[in-house]
Amino acid sequence: MHPHPLCPKFEAAFELLGKRWTGLIIRVLMDGPRRFRDISDSIPQMSDKMLSERFKELEAAGVLKRNIYPEKPVRIEYALTEKGKALRPVMDAVQAWAEEWVDSEGEK
Amino acid sequence: MHPHPLCPKFEAAFELLGKRWTGLIIRVLMDGPRRFRDISDSIPQMSDKMLSERFKELEAAGVLKRNIYPEKPVRIEYALTEKGKALRPVMDAVQAWAEEWVDSEGEK
Repeated sequence: MHPHPLCPKFEAAFELLGKRWTGLIIRVLMDGPRRFRDISDSIPQMSDKMLSERFKELEAAGVLKRNIYPEKPVRIEYALTEKGKALRPVMDAVQAWAEEWVDSEGEK
Repeated sequence: MHPHPLCPKFEAAFELLGKRWTGLIIRVLMDGPRRFRDISDSIPQMSDKMLSERFKELEAAGVLKRNIYPEKPVRIEYALTEKGKALRPVMDAVQAWAEEWVDSEGEK
């Protein structure tokens, strides 16, 4: 029996990405900047309150940023940072696995 | 504004993988079958109760299986199934991203 020392960075990444809806939010933003309502409409089961929380967490983690356009009315868009865009291989790997191994009823 | 229809399989995969500790448990098992205590020792912050729950979920999802060896005392090992082993690219992608983008204090 030998303890397996896990990389704290790996743990931190999974704690961030592992939160409910986070993967989906990032995936939507992979297609480009979106407004709050666009993302909310893409994930109908998620409440707006939850989306606000996730945005705050992902912004704090440096994965996404808010762009504010001083139009009338003001336009606010959420976009991935470089750190966020770098998650594409993760999203692609999850997608590939899901397509091959998760059955079509979405069984977990 | 156009809703982005998200693949339910992708959602289901993230709901499974996104649970706390699940990524770490799978990563430990990537190195080969392990006994309960080995995994518990590898992730000291996780309670045994939580590990039992995760094992049940991952077994139900077909990601891992229990191997029971009729020795004295009985030996029980947990091992990834083919579906579980197929998660290696996901684990590798998360690891690569974490090493590049998560700072060394494990900031999220």
